[in-house]
Amino acid sequence: MPLSSDQLAEIEEQRAQSHPTRRVVAAGMEDHLYTAHQVLDHGFVRVIDYMGDDAAICQAARVSYGKGTKSVQNDEGLIRYLMRHWHSTPFEMCEIKLHVKLPVFVARQWIRHRTANVNEYSARYSILDREFYIPAPDNVAAQSEVNNQGRGDALQGEEAARVLDILKADSARCYDNYESMISQDNQQGLARELARMNLPANIYTQWYWKVDLHNLFHFLRLRADPHAQYEIRVYADTMCKIVADWVPFAYRAFEDYRLGAVNLSAQMVDSLRRMLAGEAVTQENSGMTAREWREFEAVIRNG
Amino acid sequence: MPLSSDQLAEIEEQRAQSHPTRRVVAAGMEDHLYTAHQVLDHGFVRVIDYMGDDAAICQAARVSYGKGTKSVQNDEGLIRYLMRHWHSTPFEMCEIKLHVKLPVFVARQWIRHRTANVNEYSARYSILDREFYIPAPDNVAAQSEVNNQGRGDALQGEEAARVLDILKADSARCYDNYESMISQDNQQGLARELARMNLPANIYTQWYWKVDLHNLFHFLRLRADPHAQYEIRVYADTMCKIVADWVPFAYRAFEDYRLGAVNLSAQMVDSLRRMLAGEAVTQENSGMTAREWREFEAVIRNG
Amino acid sequence: MPLSSDQLAEIEEQRAQSHPTRRVVAAGMEDHLYTAHQVLDHGFVRVIDYMGDDAAICQAARVSYGKGTKSVQNDEGLIRYLMRHWHSTPFEMCEIKLHVKLPVFVARQWIRHRTANVNEYSARYSILDREFYIPAPDNVAAQSEVNNQGRGDALQGEEAARVLDILKADSARCYDNYESMISQDNQQGLARELARMNLPANIYTQWYWKVDLHNLFHFLRLRADPHAQYEIRVYADTMCKIVADWVPFAYRAFEDYRLGAVNLSAQMVDSLRRMLAGEAVTQENSGMTAREWREFEAVIRNG
Amino acid sequence: MPLSSDQLAEIEEQRAQSHPTRRVVAAGMEDHLYTAHQVLDHGFVRVIDYMGDDAAICQAARVSYGKGTKSVQNDEGLIRYLMRHWHSTPFEMCEIKLHVKLPVFVARQWIRHRTANVNEYSARYSILDREFYIPAPDNVAAQSEVNNQGRGDALQGEEAARVLDILKADSARCYDNYESMISQDNQQGLARELARMNLPANIYTQWYWKVDLHNLFHFLRLRADPHAQYEIRVYADTMCKIVADWVPFAYRAFEDYRLGAVNLSAQMVDSLRRMLAGEAVTQENSGMTAREWREFEAVIRNG
Repeated sequence: MPLSSDQLAEIEEQRAQSHPTRRVVAAGMEDHLYTAHQVLDHGFVRVIDYMGDDAAICQAARVSYGKGTKSVQNDEGLIRYLMRHWHSTPFEMCEIKLHVKLPVFVARQWIRHRTANVNEYSARYSILDREFYIPAPDNVAAQSEVNNQGRGDALQGEEAARVLDILKADSARCYDNYESMISQDNQQGLARELARMNLPANIYTQWYWKVDLHNLFHFLRLRADPHAQYEIRVYADTMCKIVADWVPFAYRAFEDYRLGAVNLSAQMVDSLRRMLAGEAVTQENSGMTAREWREFEAVIRNG
Repeated sequence: MPLSSDQLAEIEEQRAQSHPTRRVVAAGMEDHLYTAHQVLDHGFVRVIDYMGDDAAICQAARVSYGKGTKSVQNDEGLIRYLMRHWHSTPFEMCEIKLHVKLPVFVARQWIRHRTANVNEYSARYSILDREFYIPAPDNVAAQSEVNNQGRGDALQGEEAARVLDILKADSARCYDNYESMISQDNQQGLARELARMNLPANIYTQWYWKVDLHNLFHFLRLRADPHAQYEIRVYADTMCKIVADWVPFAYRAFEDYRLGAVNLSAQMVDSLRRMLAGEAVTQENSGMTAREWREFEAVIRNG
Repeated sequence: MPLSSDQLAEIEEQRAQSHPTRRVVAAGMEDHLYTAHQVLDHGFVRVIDYMGDDAAICQAARVSYGKGTKSVQNDEGLIRYLMRHWHSTPFEMCEIKLHVKLPVFVARQWIRHRTANVNEYSARYSILDREFYIPAPDNVAAQSEVNNQGRGDALQGEEAARVLDILKADSARCYDNYESMISQDNQQGLARELARMNLPANIYTQWYWKVDLHNLFHFLRLRADPHAQYEIRVYADTMCKIVADWVPFAYRAFEDYRLGAVNLSAQMVDSLRRMLAGEAVTQENSGMTAREWREFEAVIRNG
Repeated sequence: MPLSSDQLAEIEEQRAQSHPTRRVVAAGMEDHLYTAHQVLDHGFVRVIDYMGDDAAICQAARVSYGKGTKSVQNDEGLIRYLMRHWHSTPFEMCEIKLHVKLPVFVARQWIRHRTANVNEYSARYSILDREFYIPAPDNVAAQSEVNNQGRGDALQGEEAARVLDILKADSARCYDNYESMISQDNQQGLARELARMNLPANIYTQWYWKVDLHNLFHFLRLRADPHAQYEIRVYADTMCKIVADWVPFAYRAFEDYRLGAVNLSAQMVDSLRRMLAGEAVTQENSGMTAREWREFEAVIRNG
C-alpha cells in the first residue's frame, strides 16, 4: 500500500472540504478528487484539480456568452464532429492536474510529452523514499522475438525468480549505499544531488502533472496503445477511466475516433475499394510492402 | 455599452449559479467570474474559469499530499523565492480562462504569445458584428519623434477630427459593403470567408483564451509595459487587477521582481559599483553606448 | 509581379553565392533557395534556409555517430515505418525557414499553428505597401449551401463584377486614407500603430516563418486539405512541392500515410469487416449517424 | 576517452566532406562540426548541424529580401538592442543540432527544457554501453550547509574514497546483472525495456538535441549559472564556447545582458537611488527581507 497514515489523513481532509463555486462543476470528477488510484506496486494517480466539462468544450467552440449548451444531444453531436475533423482547440479548454507517483524509467518516457506542466519531487533538495518497482511475476517478460522494441511471454520458473532476486537485491543494496553516503553521522555526508546517481531506474519518483484535454488525449492515444510498454500503459488505462467520468461525451468520441480507430494509407484505401468492388487483391497487386499488407490484413480481418 | 440584454441575461444566469466543489476556491476570483470588465469602446475581459490559488503554487513546489500550506507567511516567502530565482514551473500550476473582445489589430499582437489556448469567433462560419474601435480623442496620437515604434502627443484640433472622421467613415462603408456582399436577397451572396477580407483591422473579434499563470505573467510583463501599444496595454492593465485578486502573493511578487524591476547589464553593474565606491563614472569611461547610458541613467535617477 | 527590380537583384545576389560547407546538403533544396514562388496575385513563398535531409531523419532515429545511412532502400523503409507508427521526433530534426508574403486574413489563420518561429513585418514601425489581394474571377465564390464554413460555386456575371468593384474600391480608399493620415506634410501625422487599423484584411503582410518538418507536415495536412480555404491552400500546395524536392522519401510517406490516408472510426472498421464478410451493412445497422455514414461511403466508394 | 576507433573514423569521414551551398555559412561553426568536445569522464557535445549566423538574426528582424545586413557595426547594434529589449523572435531564427552523451541524472534535468527537439537512444530497443559517470575526486562534494539544494566543499580523505568505491562497485554490479538478465545464453532473456530498470542514474545515455538560439540562451542562462549542478554546468560551459564561435555578436550581447546581468527588484532600485542620493540605507529601512538584502549587497558590493 503506497500511502502512509499521515498521507491518507491529508487526503481525507481535502476530500472532506466543500466550498460553493460559480464555476462549472463536473460531478463525475468531484468523486475522484484527491483519491489515490493505485497503479503498479507503489504508484498512484490522484486528481488534484480540474477545469471544465463537456459543455465547456462546446462553449469555447461557439465562443458563447452563456453556458454554450443548446441541448445535451446537440452538444454530443458537436463534440463528435470536432473530434472527427481534428478541431483540437476546443478540447484544449479543459484542464486537469494530477499527482502521480511512478518509477523513474516510466517518468523518463512520460516526460517526452512536452505540452504539459510538471513539478517533480527534487532529489537535489530532498531524500527519496526506499520504494522500488518490482514487477509482478506475470510481468517479468522475455524480449520479444518479433519486435525489437517489445516484450514477449512471461519468463518461466527459475529464470523469472532469478530476475526478481536480482532486481530486489540491487535495489536494496543501492539504496543502502545511497543512505550511507548522505548520512551525516560521523562524516560530512555526500551532497544529495550526487548521491542520487547511485539509484536505479526502478525507484519511484512523483510529480504534479497538469495538461489540457487535447494533449491528454494525445498522450493516451500513444500510451494506452498495445505497443506502449506495460508499465506506462497501466497509468494511461487508469487515466482513461478518470477522463471517462469527467467528460463522458468527449471520451466516447475519443474511443471511437482515436483509440478504436485506424489510419488507412492511400494504398490501403485503394485496395479496400477494389475488394469491395469484388476484385481479388493480394499483396503483390496492392502496392504495399509485406509489412504494410500484414498491418492491413489485421485491420480488415479480425483485428 | 458592449453587451446586449440577452448577453447580460446569460451572464447573470451564470453568476447566479452556485455548486459545491471539493476543489480549491479563490474567493477573490469568484467575484469576478463571468462579469464583463469593459476595455476600450466595445471590448471586454471576462473570467470564465480558473484553477488554483496561491496555495496551489506552494503545493506543487513542494509536491505535497495535502494542501501544501505550512503557514500563510511561509507561503508568501516561498512564492517570492520562486519568483526571484526564476523557478517558473510552480506558477504554471494555476490556470485561467478568459473571454475577450478586442479589435483585430490588438488580436494580431496578442496571438504572438504562443503558449496559450485559443478559440476565436470564426468569420468563415459566422457574420461579424458592426463594431469598430474608434479611439477616444486623447488617444489619437502623433507618430513619435524619438521612437520609430511608438506614438507621441495627441493630435491637435482639426487633424484629430479629420482622423476620427476617416476611421468612422471607412469602417461604416466597409461594413455596409461587407453586408451587401454576403446578402442573399436577390443574389447568390459572397462566401463569408471571402467577404471578411473587406473589413478593416479596427473591427472587433472575440475569443476564449486560456493560459497558465507563468505565461500570463510573461504576457503581462511585456504588455503592461509603457512601451506596449496603448490599445493592448489597457487589456493587460485590466488583467493585472484580476490577477491581483486571484493570487495576491504571486501578484505582489510579480510586481516587485518583474513589473517594477530592472535588468542591469554587466557594464551597468560595474558602473554602479564604481559609483557607490565614490568614483565619477561617465558614459565615456563606462563601456556603454550613449543609448545604454541613457537607459542606465533612467534607472538610477528618478525613473 | 510582386517583386521590385531591387528585390530581384537582392535575390539574384544571394542565389549567386556559393560557400563550401561540411553540413548535409539537400540538392533539391539548393535549387529553390531564395527564389520567390508566386502565390495569389502579390504573394510568394521563398526558401531562405534549411537544415537536414532524408538521411538526417534516419541519423537522428538511430542516434548515430556517422551519417546514419545504411542504404538508400533501408532509409526509405525506416522513414515509412516512422511515419506509419507516429514516431514524430525524427522528423523534427529537419528545419526550414521561409519568407512568405500573404494577405492578412490568411496570416490570421496561419499563425494559429503555434509551434513555429515567426518574425512579421511591423506596421507599428514601418509603412505597409499598397498591395491588396483581389481574387481572380473564378475564386469569387458564393457561400456554400451545404457547409456553413465553406464556399460554393463562383458567383455569376454582374454579382461577381460588383464584388470585385467593391473590394478594389474599398482597398484603394482605405489605403489612400491610411497614407493621408500618416503624412507629415503640413500636419503632425498619425502614429503608424494607429493608422494601420484602417487597412482591410486583404492587404498583404510578410514574415519569416521557421518550422520543423514534423510540424510543417501537420500544417500541410490541415491546410493542403480540400476543406481548407482556397487562399491558404495555395500556399500549402506550393510548400508541398518544395518539401517533395527537399526530403523525397519523407514527403512520399507523408502523401501515403497522411494526405491520402483516411481515419476510420471504430464503427467504420466494424462495418467494413462485416461488409468484407459478405454482410449487407446499412446506416441503420452500422451504429453510425447519417453524417458519419455519408463520410464512410465517401471513403469506401469512389472518394 | 569516450569514442571507439570506429566512431572516430565516422566522425573524420564527416569532417572531410565539403559541399558547395547557397546557404549562409558561419565560419566559426564549420570548424566545430562533428568534433566531439569531451565533457565529464565519458560524455561529449558534438555539433551535427546549424542554421543561420549573426546576420540571419538581423535579416529576420528586418524581414528583408536580401542578406539583411546594412553594416557589421549596424548589425551588432541591432542585435544588442533586440537582446536588451527582450525581442526574442529574431534569435529563434538560428537553430543548432547537437549530439550529446550525458549521464541519465543530467539528462533528467536537461529534458525539463521543453522547447527543443530530442531523439534519445532507446534502451527499449538497444543495449546500453557499460559507461558510468564517476566524479573526479574534486567533485565528490558534501551537502551544502547553507543551501538545501546545493553542494559544499569536497569530501575529505577516507569518506571520499568510500563514496567512489561505492559508486564504482554498484555501477559494475548493476551492469553485470543487467547483462546477465538480458543474455539469451541458455535462457529466454529478459526484455530490454525491463532490464534497464536495474541501471543506476550515473549510466550514460545519448541524444540528438535541436534547439533555436533563443531557447538555447534560456537554457544556458539557467544552466551556466553558479547555482546549477556542476555536472550539467560543464555541458552548458562547453556549449557557451561553441555559441561564441557561431554567433559572436549575439553571444556577447547574451553575456552582457543575461549571463553577467542582474535583475533588481522594485525595492532594490528604490534603495539604490536613495544610496546614490547620499542616504544611508539599511536592511531595516529598505523594505527588503534579510535574504533579499543579502542578495542586494552581493550585487552592489564586490559580487
